Amino acid sequence: MKRLLITGAAGGLGSVLRVRLSHLAETLRLSDIGDLGEARANEELVPCDLSDKAAVDALVDGCDGIVHFGGRSIEDSWSVIRSANIDGMFNLYEAARNHGRPRIVFASSNHAVGYYPQSQRLDADANTRPDSLYGVSKVFGEALASMYHDKFGVETAIVRIGSVLDKPDGHRNMSTWLSFDDFVSLIERVFAVPKLGCPIIYGASANDAGWWDNSKTGYLGWQPKDNSATYRAEIEANTPRPPADAPDVLYQGGLFTAEGIYED
Amino acid sequence: MKRLLITGAAGGLGSVLRVRLSHLAETLRLSDIGDLGEARANEELVPCDLSDKAAVDALVDGCDGIVHFGGRSIEDSWSVIRSANIDGMFNLYEAARNHGRPRIVFASSNHAVGYYPQSQRLDADANTRPDSLYGVSKVFGEALASMYHDKFGVETAIVRIGSVLDKPDGHRNMSTWLSFDDFVSLIERVFAVPKLGCPIIYGASANDAGWWDNSKTGYLGWQPKDNSATYRAEIEANTPRPPADAPDVLYQGGLFTAEGIYED
Amino acid sequence: MKRLLITGAAGGLGSVLRVRLSHLAETLRLSDIGDLGEARANEELVPCDLSDKAAVDALVDGCDGIVHFGGRSIEDSWSVIRSANIDGMFNLYEAARNHGRPRIVFASSNHAVGYYPQSQRLDADANTRPDSLYGVSKVFGEALASMYHDKFGVETAIVRIGSVLDKPDGHRNMSTWLSFDDFVSLIERVFAVPKLGCPIIYGASANDAGWWDNSKTGYLGWQPKDNSATYRAEIEANTPRPPADAPDVLYQGGLFTAEGIYED
Amino acid sequence: MKRLLITGAAGGLGSVLRVRLSHLAETLRLSDIGDLGEARANEELVPCDLSDKAAVDALVDGCDGIVHFGGRSIEDSWSVIRSANIDGMFNLYEAARNHGRPRIVFASSNHAVGYYPQSQRLDADANTRPDSLYGVSKVFGEALASMYHDKFGVETAIVRIGSVLDKPDGHRNMSTWLSFDDFVSLIERVFAVPKLGCPIIYGASANDAGWWDNSKTGYLGWQPKDNSATYRAEIEANTPRPPADAPDVLYQGGLFTAEGIYED
Amino acid sequence: MKRLLITGAAGGLGSVLRVRLSHLAETLRLSDIGDLGEARANEELVPCDLSDKAAVDALVDGCDGIVHFGGRSIEDSWSVIRSANIDGMFNLYEAARNHGRPRIVFASSNHAVGYYPQSQRLDADANTRPDSLYGVSKVFGEALASMYHDKFGVETAIVRIGSVLDKPDGHRNMSTWLSFDDFVSLIERVFAVPKLGCPIIYGASANDAGWWDNSKTGYLGWQPKDNSATYRAEIEANTPRPPADAPDVLYQGGLFTAEGIYED
Amino acid sequence: MKRLLITGAAGGLGSVLRVRLSHLAETLRLSDIGDLGEARANEELVPCDLSDKAAVDALVDGCDGIVHFGGRSIEDSWSVIRSANIDGMFNLYEAARNHGRPRIVFASSNHAVGYYPQSQRLDADANTRPDSLYGVSKVFGEALASMYHDKFGVETAIVRIGSVLDKPDGHRNMSTWLSFDDFVSLIERVFAVPKLGCPIIYGASANDAGWWDNSKTGYLGWQPKDNSATYRAEIEANTPRPPADAPDVLYQGGLFTAEGIYED
Repeated sequence: MKRLLITGAAGGLGSVLRVRLSHLAETLRLSDIGDLGEARANEELVPCDLSDKAAVDALVDGCDGIVHFGGRSIEDSWSVIRSANIDGMFNLYEAARNHGRPRIVFASSNHAVGYYPQSQRLDADANTRPDSLYGVSKVFGEALASMYHDKFGVETAIVRIGSVLDKPDGHRNMSTWLSFDDFVSLIERVFAVPKLGCPIIYGASANDAGWWDNSKTGYLGWQPKDNSATYRAEIEANTPRPPADAPDVLYQGGLFTAEGIYED
Repeated sequence: MKRLLITGAAGGLGSVLRVRLSHLAETLRLSDIGDLGEARANEELVPCDLSDKAAVDALVDGCDGIVHFGGRSIEDSWSVIRSANIDGMFNLYEAARNHGRPRIVFASSNHAVGYYPQSQRLDADANTRPDSLYGVSKVFGEALASMYHDKFGVETAIVRIGSVLDKPDGHRNMSTWLSFDDFVSLIERVFAVPKLGCPIIYGASANDAGWWDNSKTGYLGWQPKDNSATYRAEIEANTPRPPADAPDVLYQGGLFTAEGIYED
Repeated sequence: MKRLLITGAAGGLGSVLRVRLSHLAETLRLSDIGDLGEARANEELVPCDLSDKAAVDALVDGCDGIVHFGGRSIEDSWSVIRSANIDGMFNLYEAARNHGRPRIVFASSNHAVGYYPQSQRLDADANTRPDSLYGVSKVFGEALASMYHDKFGVETAIVRIGSVLDKPDGHRNMSTWLSFDDFVSLIERVFAVPKLGCPIIYGASANDAGWWDNSKTGYLGWQPKDNSATYRAEIEANTPRPPADAPDVLYQGGLFTAEGIYED
Repeated sequence: MKRLLITGAAGGLGSVLRVRLSHLAETLRLSDIGDLGEARANEELVPCDLSDKAAVDALVDGCDGIVHFGGRSIEDSWSVIRSANIDGMFNLYEAARNHGRPRIVFASSNHAVGYYPQSQRLDADANTRPDSLYGVSKVFGEALASMYHDKFGVETAIVRIGSVLDKPDGHRNMSTWLSFDDFVSLIERVFAVPKLGCPIIYGASANDAGWWDNSKTGYLGWQPKDNSATYRAEIEANTPRPPADAPDVLYQGGLFTAEGIYED
Repeated sequence: MKRLLITGAAGGLGSVLRVRLSHLAETLRLSDIGDLGEARANEELVPCDLSDKAAVDALVDGCDGIVHFGGRSIEDSWSVIRSANIDGMFNLYEAARNHGRPRIVFASSNHAVGYYPQSQRLDADANTRPDSLYGVSKVFGEALASMYHDKFGVETAIVRIGSVLDKPDGHRNMSTWLSFDDFVSLIERVFAVPKLGCPIIYGASANDAGWWDNSKTGYLGWQPKDNSATYRAEIEANTPRPPADAPDVLYQGGLFTAEGIYED
Repeated sequence: MKRLLITGAAGGLGSVLRVRLSHLAETLRLSDIGDLGEARANEELVPCDLSDKAAVDALVDGCDGIVHFGGRSIEDSWSVIRSANIDGMFNLYEAARNHGRPRIVFASSNHAVGYYPQSQRLDADANTRPDSLYGVSKVFGEALASMYHDKFGVETAIVRIGSVLDKPDGHRNMSTWLSFDDFVSLIERVFAVPKLGCPIIYGASANDAGWWDNSKTGYLGWQPKDNSATYRAEIEANTPRPPADAPDVLYQGGLFTAEGIYED
């Protein structure tokens, strides 16, 4: 690719992946509402508020691909979620439609299906079951991506991300952990396949205790290599076993199911 | 019920159903942004803009049940859809959570699954596949209802309405027609069952050429009685057969799939 | 048939069906541990305790078909359930194996699947989920019938009976009601089909609010005709709507889920 | 339609349907290798051997629709089956491709799935399981129709016909019976729908004891009205119950499963 | 755990696992009707007949976990099976209900599904299909465990054990083999997960020729490591290929399907 | 085996496998319509035209197993396909029926399901969807094998072969590649299992980007070891990414979907 846009590039995920994805394009265009720091060799920095339609239109112009980590990534008040994740998604897809339909990686979330019990195995055809306003905004985003694919041909990899961490650190992310290496290899596959479509992919490593079945998107050729079980002995030694009725044990979305509605 | 709220009561659907549903409650509270006309015997009229959070909160206060027809019911620009169908839904569910969690009939739409081909049979577990910003807003509404059910116990009948008409008048609504009688009997069942949950129900009569399978919500005891086939001879005599590649023939959402994005 | 055995013929169900099934055989052999009253024209009365192996062997000898209503039909202590429903079943199937393998109607029960929520539709492939020792004994009986079919060729119609009543009288049996007429027509079909096998059939009339799908046993040609909805208006007028968290509303097995273990 | 071709018009099925389908087109072109008798008012008679490619090409030229009953309709030697049902199908589809792709009703057969046990319910996604060379030739025909649809846009209604009779006359056709009225209404629907595709439809009336589930082709709007159960009492009175291990009782294809390979 | 009860600890399986599981608890309480030998360091020996309700109650008192290998593990007469596997299970679950509901590993068996053909892949939702009175007693045990979970919150890992052997030694256990290492790691997982529920798990190693799919219980994080294929060359060299119609080749339950009913 | 017949032994596949399979039998009988070269140590060469019934009968006589690679393996005119793949299959199965029913490996093809999109995962129950006359002839062959199994007990491994190559060389065979080693191990398993039946197996290596799920035939114990991903970097370096609408990217059958009908 000539130019790959990464939104949310100043966030926890974005600040790691701007380094790890630099080989994917001649130029990385990095955007965030927060401080992006110094530009590295092949980076260009474009601060942007995703709820500003004109700004997003300019941001997308000239890009061949988009990795969309921008927006709010935890629960928040309705006005924050709506601006960042609902208006923001609409603006991004309108821009993509108007500027050559670059392929998009959309950071959706396990919180789109967070109210499923942990004992239930899910695949790409599971109905959504969001656990928060944040989760609802991700369902909105998935629906928008689906419509822009069916109607306008914009291709999106909808990634229901589990827990991107250096290593797993507790019961729930024994199942949800996604290593950086595996996430990078997924993004590489998304931009390498001749035809992407608009698949739903669960973003988790090859964890022994995984909940999610990606076999329906096998055509992408993505095979995660890491396994949270490598860290099990260490975690079980350091972490008390949570009670059987803790939200972190009952539901795939964990603690998100236990939060109320945030006031503005 | 003591008081049943009908939103969108001045619209095409609402203006018929305010009459047909009057037996369900001692008082019907009717609301709309448009002109509601004169109040009938057991009606109280409360004009309201659904995007006004405080007004919606007051509107819901004191109601035992809600039939939510309000919002925009066809494609429109983003700002219209967002205010009426996204902000409006959030405001309604927040008010319901705060005022005793009345049971809700949510007028979702076949346009939440409008990009499925007409040859594909769907049931309540079909993934959404919206055909328009309008359809995307209905997916948002379904997700919000699901989350308020799982998290706060608000019960909603999500009705993916087909085509509510006096009688069917063309190819597509031979499959999508929902008669007023059948719609009324569905709403009666929703408020009669001891436990509703948050089911997805396709709102169509017992049409010979139907696309949708409601067997998973059989516990509601709803059995539509009307059948578009009654009108087939008349329709085929008066309407030329549409071409095989017309949007009205290809997709369940019909012409909605053929519309672009509306500018504000 | 020359001789049809009805066990449990003095019970609530048996005492009605001994009359309604008399056309099926030249002789009805009626058995019970309780008082069978006077023998009618084509009846022969054979009192029998099902836990007595030798007595059951004699009882079955000479019969072409068996309708097995015998045993305990509600929750009870382990020793009662075990004698009547576990030992009794073993004795009956051993006798059937030894005496020409007459075809059997086994009165299993919805309590074999009583812990499913009422909102879940079941068919013949649903895993069992019993709600009581009684329900567990019915799962045992189904398993025994299955094994005697696979291994010895004894054919059984396993009927998971709902609620056999003159007419439905409350919320739960709007879904579970089985009319006497429909039950009789089912038993007629079981003895008429050239090959029965060992199917699981849900014993319910054609109720609008039914939970169970018998399509997999369509080859039997049984089509129930009655519908609890005929009585809905009357029931809803006379019966208060039960609360949403009542066992009678939550689970298919209704109140059985609320009983503890009975001491001997 | 201007001109509808019926092949096999001198056969058992064709000779009835040439009368019953005459309202579907201005002209019926009737073809057979056997004697077609006298032409009626809107008929034109075109004798033709289906294995003659040039003759079939001429036969199809000028037709808007085809009802293909031609070919061998029971088991026969390989050379007969191959000429009539394999070469014949290829010739017909080549002609259709070359002459405007008229819509086709293809008389496939239950013998394409004849080795399924009668206790198994099938729908349009069942794998084929033919019971004879005849059945294998029907699987070939279905595959050819599928390929001409995917590749060249020829639309075919693949009808796995059960038993077309005035009325059912034995155990097996209590399940397989297709009345003439129901068959005619099916063919009417095939030519009336705006888009047909290439569906597999089981050709049976609404028999209580049916084996086949047509719900996946509900979009056609076909609802058979007749029911073999109307004749059950009469049949059971006149016909002894066949033994449980008779081919007519074991397999959906009945006696076809019991025939060997015919020598030329 | 403070105290883990192993029933059947003198049997083939128990005598190995009492050693292999000693790290799971401070004290192992070992029970059997047979000779338990000498107590090792952290063992306490409690001889017990499982059909003795009071004795079982005392046996369970004070235990945090139970590995239930007790009972009859091959086909036997009804009175033996009933006492050991039916009464014994009831007594154990009553004791567990009364003494703090310790988590249970229940040694169910592949003979609960023994009549499936070896060519059919099964998962946790397969209907039971027992092959013997022994198999029927295991279905009873599974049903009892399910009911005690739904009603009283007792958690059980239902393990349908294949063939626990040092190494596989014939055709059938190329598919059914469960190594001791893999069995131990399964039991470790059962007692380590925060919430167990009442899952059905097939107890087999990661055999190339396996019949069973455990993906639905992936949340346990159990991944067997051994593979019978390691021994294939050796086995095929030493064992003649069994005939295609041998019970050991036809059915998952193997030779159990070929045994009759044992007399007392 | 004493004698294994390989048809098509002079073809691309056959000429490799005649060497790789020589350990499977004391004698390899090799047949082709083309030049078979010199006979090696345990080979006997029998030239044969598969459309010659008597010659095929003699060819099969005395063989214990058959690997059927013969016939036309790419698209061709109807007369070529019919002689080689339709008449040829019939002749082979008639000979097998008449000469002791040797077990058969039938080289079917992914072109029997070639019109499925590459994004759709298939297993053994997928309906056929052929992409060419060649693909239709393979569906015919599968149906014939199925019928000869159900009716006459001839066992066949139906292998829907992907792309047998030394190594993958482009986008599509990253998914379809079958290495020679993996193909040989599959054929070994087919002749080693005690009971084969008539399974459908997708012939592909363990490719990261595979489309096909062989879990339903796990009982065969075949586990391919090779993976096209080994060659991915090399291929992506040397091959331009094909456009998203190329037949080689859209359909599982690749370029076969783009060919017309060949004239004789």
